[in-house]
Amino acid sequence: MTNLKYVPEEPIAAIATALAPGALGIVRTSGKGCIDLVSKVFSRSKALLEAKGNTLVYGWLIEDGNKENRIDEVMLGVYKAPKSFTGEDMVEVYCHGGPSVVTAVLNLLLTNGFRQAERGEYTFRAYINGKTDLTKAEAVKEIIDSKTDASRGRAAGRLAGNLYKEIDSVKQLIIDTLASIEVEIEYPEDEETIADSFDNQKLLEAQERLQSLVNSWKSEKLYQDGARVVLCGKTNAGKSSLFNALLKEERAIVSNIAGTTRDWLESWASFEGVPVRLFDTAGLRETSDVIEKEGVERTKDLSKEANVVLYLVDSNDGITLEDESFLKEEHNIPVVLVWNKCDMEGSKKSPAFDTQKLWTECVSVSAKNGAGVGQLTSCVKKILTGGSGTDREQAGLGSARQKASVAEALERVAHALEAQAEKYSLDAVVQDLEDSLDSLGEVTGSVTPEDVLDSIFSHFCVGK
Amino acid sequence: MTNLKYVPEEPIAAIATALAPGALGIVRTSGKGCIDLVSKVFSRSKALLEAKGNTLVYGWLIEDGNKENRIDEVMLGVYKAPKSFTGEDMVEVYCHGGPSVVTAVLNLLLTNGFRQAERGEYTFRAYINGKTDLTKAEAVKEIIDSKTDASRGRAAGRLAGNLYKEIDSVKQLIIDTLASIEVEIEYPEDEETIADSFDNQKLLEAQERLQSLVNSWKSEKLYQDGARVVLCGKTNAGKSSLFNALLKEERAIVSNIAGTTRDWLESWASFEGVPVRLFDTAGLRETSDVIEKEGVERTKDLSKEANVVLYLVDSNDGITLEDESFLKEEHNIPVVLVWNKCDMEGSKKSPAFDTQKLWTECVSVSAKNGAGVGQLTSCVKKILTGGSGTDREQAGLGSARQKASVAEALERVAHALEAQAEKYSLDAVVQDLEDSLDSLGEVTGSVTPEDVLDSIFSHFCVGK
Repeated sequence: MTNLKYVPEEPIAAIATALAPGALGIVRTSGKGCIDLVSKVFSRSKALLEAKGNTLVYGWLIEDGNKENRIDEVMLGVYKAPKSFTGEDMVEVYCHGGPSVVTAVLNLLLTNGFRQAERGEYTFRAYINGKTDLTKAEAVKEIIDSKTDASRGRAAGRLAGNLYKEIDSVKQLIIDTLASIEVEIEYPEDEETIADSFDNQKLLEAQERLQSLVNSWKSEKLYQDGARVVLCGKTNAGKSSLFNALLKEERAIVSNIAGTTRDWLESWASFEGVPVRLFDTAGLRETSDVIEKEGVERTKDLSKEANVVLYLVDSNDGITLEDESFLKEEHNIPVVLVWNKCDMEGSKKSPAFDTQKLWTECVSVSAKNGAGVGQLTSCVKKILTGGSGTDREQAGLGSARQKASVAEALERVAHALEAQAEKYSLDAVVQDLEDSLDSLGEVTGSVTPEDVLDSIFSHFCVGK
Repeated sequence: MTNLKYVPEEPIAAIATALAPGALGIVRTSGKGCIDLVSKVFSRSKALLEAKGNTLVYGWLIEDGNKENRIDEVMLGVYKAPKSFTGEDMVEVYCHGGPSVVTAVLNLLLTNGFRQAERGEYTFRAYINGKTDLTKAEAVKEIIDSKTDASRGRAAGRLAGNLYKEIDSVKQLIIDTLASIEVEIEYPEDEETIADSFDNQKLLEAQERLQSLVNSWKSEKLYQDGARVVLCGKTNAGKSSLFNALLKEERAIVSNIAGTTRDWLESWASFEGVPVRLFDTAGLRETSDVIEKEGVERTKDLSKEANVVLYLVDSNDGITLEDESFLKEEHNIPVVLVWNKCDMEGSKKSPAFDTQKLWTECVSVSAKNGAGVGQLTSCVKKILTGGSGTDREQAGLGSARQKASVAEALERVAHALEAQAEKYSLDAVVQDLEDSLDSLGEVTGSVTPEDVLDSIFSHFCVGK
C-alpha cells in the first residue's frame, strides 16, 4: 500500500509531457503553498502572487533568486483551489520542450520545496477532493493509452461520466426495490415476509442493464488492448503487398515498436476503429535450409499467439497440399482464408465450401489494387468483436476491476431474484441487494477499500 | 524558399509536445480569428469568446457542434494580440497526452478552419511581429535541443538577449565612428579626406569584441553538438568499468540512442557541462577469430571519428608492445593515456615521459573505486575546449550562421583599420563600415535576406 502514503496538500511536482524532443513541455505542481513556492524561483514573483485563478503569467524561472541565473522563459498557468484539476492550488509550468530543459525545470522545483509526485498522485488528489470518481479517473489513463480514435472516443464517454451515470441509475433501481421491501417488512400484509411479496420489475431491469455492462467488457478491452492479427501463407502469396495495403487503407498508427532485428514486420493499424497489431511473417514452405526453417518456425509461433490468422493463398494456384498441411496445424484460432490476386486473369474461383473446417471465413482480395481489402478488415473486426454492435454513446466498462465489481453486483441481483422465485425470506433478499450496492459503490469509488485505490493509481503515469 | 510561403495571420495549428505517451499534451494555434474558430469546436464557446487575454478556460473539445461527440476534456490558454508568443491571437490547447488523443485534437482543428503549421512558423511570426530577433529565435531551438544544463544555460543567455545586446553595442561603436567620419568628410581640415584623420579608438574596441565573439563559436558549438569520446584498450584493461564510472560520476543523459544490435555501447554523458557521446568498444587484441577481428576493426573506425580517445592501460602490466602498436595507429586525434587500476598493489608508476609522442596527457585512475575519474573528465574537457574559459554570462554565438556574419563584419572592420594605416581615402573606410553594419544586421535580423530566414526557420520543430 505504498502509494497511499501519498500525503494530500503536500507540494508536489512532476513532468507531465513525454520526455522527448518537442517544442513545449509541461511541469505540473499542486499542493498547499505551491504558488508561493514557485514565486520564489520566478522573475516576476509579484505578478504571480497577485494572479487570479485560471490565468497565465509570463516570466523566467530563475535559480537562487538571481535573475541572471535563468533556467527558461515560461508561461505559468495559475489555478486556485478548489477550481483546479486536483482541487488544490496548482501552478502548471509551460516551458520549452526537450529533455534537458524540462528536467532542469523539475530539478529547480525539487530543490525549492517540492517533492516528486508519485504515479497517479494528481488524479488521486482529484478523487479524494471529490473532483472525479473512479470511472472517470480510470478513463483518463485510458485516453492517454488509447490507440485509435474509436478507443479514445469510448474512453472520453466514460471520462464525461456516461458509465458513472449508468451505474448510478442502476443503483437507484436497486435502492427503490430495497425501499419497497423495507415497507413490506415494516408493515407486512401476511405474517411471513416471504420474498415473492415485492415487485421485481425494477430488479429485472437492473439485472438486464448490469448484464449488458458485463457483456460490454469484451469489446471495450479489445478497443483498449487491441488484437494480434498475423499474415501467413506461402512465399509469393502476396503477404507483404497485403500488409502494406492494410496499413494504407486502415492508416498505420504511430508507434514505437522496434523491429529492426526481427525477421517479421509489425505495425499497429486501425481496423474500423479496433486497434490491430499486424504481423507480416516469413513465407511458409518446406525447406532444408536451417535459417529459413527457423523463420518458418517463428511464423508458426506468432500465429499461435494470434487472435486472428489471415492465411493468404495465390488464387492462381488455389489451395495446395502444402497450404492444407499448414492450415491443419492451426489450433482454435479463427483463420480468414484470403483469396489473393483475384484481379488476375488466371485466378480460380474461391472455394464455396470448407469441407475440412480449415478456415472461418473466406474473402477475395487484390492486395495489388486494393479490391476486397475493406471487406477483409470488416470481416476481421466482426470476428474480433463477436459481431456485437458497439455504440459509441452507450456506456461500457473501462477496466477489469470495474468488470469484476459489476459482475459481483449482477450475481447478487440474480441471487435476489432467485430468492424471490424460491420464496426465501425477505431478509436474504435485502442482504443480496445491499451487497450489490456495495459492489457498485466500488466501481465509482463511493465505497472502495484502500488497496483497490492503491492498485488503480499506481498504474498511472507520473504527472497525471 | 518554400517556407516563406508562410502566410502570416492565417490560422495555423500544430502539436507542440513530443508525440509519445505522457500525461498531458499541447496543441498550439495562432492567427486571425483563431479564438473564434476554436469556439466552434468547444463545449463552452461563450466562455471562450468572452475570455480575456492570458486566461485559462475549462471545457470539452467536441465534433460537429454536438456535445456528445467528445474529443477530450481540456484547458484552453487564451492569448490576445499583441500579448502572445507570436504577437497574434493564440489559443493553446492543454489536452491529455498520448499520440492518439493529441492527434485527434489536431485533426479536429485541421478540419475546422486551421492549416497545419510549418516548421518554425510560430517563431517566424514572432520575428516578423517584432516579438523576437533572430538571435533569440535561434536560442529557442538551441534550448529545446540542449543536452546538458550548461548547454541550456548558455542558450538561455542568448534567449534573454545577451548576444543581441552585445551585437547592438558593437554596432553602436561602428555607427559612432561612421558619424565622426561623416563630419570629417563634410568639413575637412585638409583638402584630402584621407583615412588617418579619424579616431580609431572605438573601431579597435569593436574589432576586439567581434574577435572574441568569433572565438566563442568553437566552444559554443561544442556545448551544442557535444563531442565523441571513445574508450579503447586491450581486453581486460577495464574499459567497461571506466565507462560505468564515467556515466555514474557525470550522470548519464537520457537519450534514445538505439544500440541493441551493436557491438559497442554508447551513452551521452555530461563532462563538467560539455555533452559527451561516450563509446565503450570491443577490446583490442591480435586475433585470428573472424568475428572478433571485425570488432577490433570497428573499434579502430570509431576511434578515428573521435574527438578524444581514452586509451586504457592496466597499470599492473604497463604499456605493452601491443599497446604501442595500437597507439601508433592513431591519426591526429588527442589521446589520453588512462593509467587504470592505480589502486592495486602491483600497479606500476605511470610513465613520466612520452618519448614517442604517443599520447597527449596521462591520467591515473581507478575505475573500480572512482579515484582520478574527476581529473580525467577535467582533462578531457580542457582538451575539447582548448582550455578557453567559458563564462556563462558572457555572450557567445549560437549558430554557424551567426558566426559567418560576425566573421564577415570583423573582416570589414579590420579592413577599415588597415585602410587607415595605409592612408586610403575615407570613402573606402565608410564602405567597409557600412558593410560591417549590414553583416551585423543579419545576425539579429534587422537586415536579413529572405533565403537566410527560410533556412533558419525550416530547421525548427513543428509547433515552435
